Amino acid sequence: MAGGGTGLKITDLIKCSSEDLPLEHAGRTRRRQLLYNSDLQDDEIKNILELTQRIKDRGPRDLLKGKTMGLIFQDPSLRTRVSFEVAMIQLGGSCIQLRTEGDLYALEASAETVMDGSAPEHVKDSARTLSGYLDAIGIRASRKGNDWASDREDVLLNGYAEHATVPVINLQSHMAHPCQALGDIFTMQSKVRSLAGRSLSLTWMQNPASPGLGIPHSLVLLAARMGMNIKLAHPQGFGLDEEVMQEAQEHASRMGGKLEVIHDIEEGTQGADFVYARSWHSLRCYDDPDREALMKRSLDHWIVTQELISASSSAWVMQPLPVRRNLSVTDEVLDGDRSLIYEQAKNRLHVQKALLLHLL
Amino acid sequence: MAGGGTGLKITDLIKCSSEDLPLEHAGRTRRRQLLYNSDLQDDEIKNILELTQRIKDRGPRDLLKGKTMGLIFQDPSLRTRVSFEVAMIQLGGSCIQLRTEGDLYALEASAETVMDGSAPEHVKDSARTLSGYLDAIGIRASRKGNDWASDREDVLLNGYAEHATVPVINLQSHMAHPCQALGDIFTMQSKVRSLAGRSLSLTWMQNPASPGLGIPHSLVLLAARMGMNIKLAHPQGFGLDEEVMQEAQEHASRMGGKLEVIHDIEEGTQGADFVYARSWHSLRCYDDPDREALMKRSLDHWIVTQELISASSSAWVMQPLPVRRNLSVTDEVLDGDRSLIYEQAKNRLHVQKALLLHLL
Amino acid sequence: MAGGGTGLKITDLIKCSSEDLPLEHAGRTRRRQLLYNSDLQDDEIKNILELTQRIKDRGPRDLLKGKTMGLIFQDPSLRTRVSFEVAMIQLGGSCIQLRTEGDLYALEASAETVMDGSAPEHVKDSARTLSGYLDAIGIRASRKGNDWASDREDVLLNGYAEHATVPVINLQSHMAHPCQALGDIFTMQSKVRSLAGRSLSLTWMQNPASPGLGIPHSLVLLAARMGMNIKLAHPQGFGLDEEVMQEAQEHASRMGGKLEVIHDIEEGTQGADFVYARSWHSLRCYDDPDREALMKRSLDHWIVTQELISASSSAWVMQPLPVRRNLSVTDEVLDGDRSLIYEQAKNRLHVQKALLLHLL
Repeated sequence: MAGGGTGLKITDLIKCSSEDLPLEHAGRTRRRQLLYNSDLQDDEIKNILELTQRIKDRGPRDLLKGKTMGLIFQDPSLRTRVSFEVAMIQLGGSCIQLRTEGDLYALEASAETVMDGSAPEHVKDSARTLSGYLDAIGIRASRKGNDWASDREDVLLNGYAEHATVPVINLQSHMAHPCQALGDIFTMQSKVRSLAGRSLSLTWMQNPASPGLGIPHSLVLLAARMGMNIKLAHPQGFGLDEEVMQEAQEHASRMGGKLEVIHDIEEGTQGADFVYARSWHSLRCYDDPDREALMKRSLDHWIVTQELISASSSAWVMQPLPVRRNLSVTDEVLDGDRSLIYEQAKNRLHVQKALLLHLL
Repeated sequence: MAGGGTGLKITDLIKCSSEDLPLEHAGRTRRRQLLYNSDLQDDEIKNILELTQRIKDRGPRDLLKGKTMGLIFQDPSLRTRVSFEVAMIQLGGSCIQLRTEGDLYALEASAETVMDGSAPEHVKDSARTLSGYLDAIGIRASRKGNDWASDREDVLLNGYAEHATVPVINLQSHMAHPCQALGDIFTMQSKVRSLAGRSLSLTWMQNPASPGLGIPHSLVLLAARMGMNIKLAHPQGFGLDEEVMQEAQEHASRMGGKLEVIHDIEEGTQGADFVYARSWHSLRCYDDPDREALMKRSLDHWIVTQELISASSSAWVMQPLPVRRNLSVTDEVLDGDRSLIYEQAKNRLHVQKALLLHLL
Repeated sequence: MAGGGTGLKITDLIKCSSEDLPLEHAGRTRRRQLLYNSDLQDDEIKNILELTQRIKDRGPRDLLKGKTMGLIFQDPSLRTRVSFEVAMIQLGGSCIQLRTEGDLYALEASAETVMDGSAPEHVKDSARTLSGYLDAIGIRASRKGNDWASDREDVLLNGYAEHATVPVINLQSHMAHPCQALGDIFTMQSKVRSLAGRSLSLTWMQNPASPGLGIPHSLVLLAARMGMNIKLAHPQGFGLDEEVMQEAQEHASRMGGKLEVIHDIEEGTQGADFVYARSWHSLRCYDDPDREALMKRSLDHWIVTQELISASSSAWVMQPLPVRRNLSVTDEVLDGDRSLIYEQAKNRLHVQKALLLHLL
């Protein structure tokens, strides 16, 4: 192939992974999207992870030449944005930034409404129009409201998915961050042959900010589907969404794994193969940040230290960044030889390439 | 051609359209720009529309490889921005975003002035510098002032056009939106063989916002040049710019078409082949938004409903988006089988590719 | 080569310039970065300037296919941003915009600190993560503080350089603007065969704004390394950083050139081959803008006029833009036939292509 590239074709890459697929997958009859990991069947996840490894090894180019992905960000993003943009570029395509301030008008999401409010455009028209120009739409729609019952519906994300005619990819919503979870699972797999039966401790950590629940939700759900034994460690009042926990529990039962909740960081991280540190906000006081801040005043011992990790003998340490050094996790742990934080960040690039090739 | 593309060359695409052109066109002796549709001669418009169809059918790539277009937006844009960016990418080129906040300094546009005000750079220096880097400059300069006599001069747009040495494309100004009009004409042509003698109703519609006059101006002027019979329907006080109306009237006379102004939405849309709905601000109270808001309180019947359209038997419905659903136009009309709104949006992509190939 | 390009390979371009290099250069054993011109050895500068000329003549493509450069801008930029973005695109690569508002979290730069302040991410983690995605990082970090002793450390720039594992390029800092200086030296060289012994007058000019010292610092240092005779003309109180002056003085001695400071614009520009006009802020009242504004009230005669230039017989006029016309430099001078301002701006593109090929 002239002008660079490795001479790989998408069929070469996909072939070995899709030959065992039932026809309805190979023929792509289902809607192609990734809003939640549940949009991917077990064999699709397996295929994406295998494809990721081949992409990482061989660096294919030009497979998405001329293709465009729109990136809609309601919130700041470093890793997700840059890794998707670089993924598209390295595959020969391009990303187009669509910030919600400025580029995109505010959007109305309710059906059949008289649009006499402040939003000048309906999500339907935005999604349909963008589908005419772009080959995929990625959206981070996680701007916090006051009401969890409403926020957990991921209205904007689902509005785009309903009306778009091209694949929609969730770049983090109130409920999920499936791309992060895929990258994390790939990172864990690269350290141990199989994840089934391996132990993952997902622990809450102190943090003056209050990130969303997307990452812990998606990680618990996907790790449970891989048959891992999961300890979820967090202070009282910081439980995950109940339906998510129920669904994860069902996956664990089906796959022969376990899911425990533990309200103690030492006990919660003991003997783990992987310790995954992340902060998230409290659903108990979702509409009351002051009360949450008050709760957090007594939680400074929720910090991941070398002492804690050493107790787990040889745990790998994961953290999705950004991280408050020496407040959430110590330098010693983050910069130690069991830390996977940069590998984890870099794997987002590889796994998202596989995802793009799978969906586009 | 390796690495994708259809093997088409620009000469293949252009050949059939330019062989009948007088030499001074083929030789490109005139300034290449699109500020107003009047920058294009009748045969150039015909050629661009023919080229659009070939591009739509064949999807040529790599014709603008390595070329760059700068996009300067003073106001938000969804369709114009994304369609230009995708057009360049699909042709092998790239767009560079130049927002006026942050990227570009505020600009002085007056000649020979002592620059002791707040603007640190002259439009001349910005245009000349950008011309050294870019292959084309697109600009949306429609930030509303208080004085129509001054705004209608499109000072910033014309300043760039005067000083740039690469093609300048108007992405919407106070006076015109020629790219939208080209796309709209292409969309209408794709439904009926020839536009001459066909009837177009351009009707004002209710809208809490007050968009500019660029779209109605450019559409009326271009439709008149195509020999259409135009009914312009709007409430009292919402007339277009007088010189534009005069010029459109002259085109209509020359081409054997008609241009009527009607102050009633039912009468104004009756029997039309195409009903085109769009809102715009009032020139009568350009400097007094409160008075305009007051005028609009009694204009809620300026809404495009199915009843209205059905009366026109089989009119196609057009609307350039964004649209206030059920306030400006009803869902039934917008989502009905005579609605061209998404086709219209998508055709912007194709027609702008043709325009870029014509100008660059 | 299919799909455009000139068939040049990077080896063709580099070959002739690197064959005389000692092995440690050709083998690229030193850290590849451009924070300050001192990061480049004399022969590297010579090679980059020669490569620039070949690139300008031959317009190579595809040499950086699939490569990405992140551009981090804390301050607005027109020329630097667009010229780097176009340079990458014309070489087959891409730039990714990373504005500090929105895209990038605020960054902590101190080592081993407990991150309980407002910054949610450490520069180490940002630099390491970005190094996993990108092939180069460019950064403009020149947001003015109140304390020169602290600002002159260029903490953010050096933080990125310390932690990144890909080349870091300074896009203007408090202390330096090496890319501008390289372009300016190339521009001067293109007018006279050799710069050694040629005279350069760098003169302060009146300006209501107070740009940083990066440009005068880098220009004086690099011109001194080229053996030029430099007159630095500025009002009392507008001297450059003392260490920079000392270093420039040493270069001048070593190369057989001169460096004089003159507090008078007429005397300072007399007999120059090149008159370079630029404003900068006062280090004497770095923390007191009101006092600086007061000082500047009596400095309106620091304007570059045709009369001033004519006295220097046939000086070429340079100015890095933006420029306050008729307040800093007159239209007559800027638009005259000895003005190099647009050539200077355009050469940034060529010299940065050479730099990117050298560093990546």
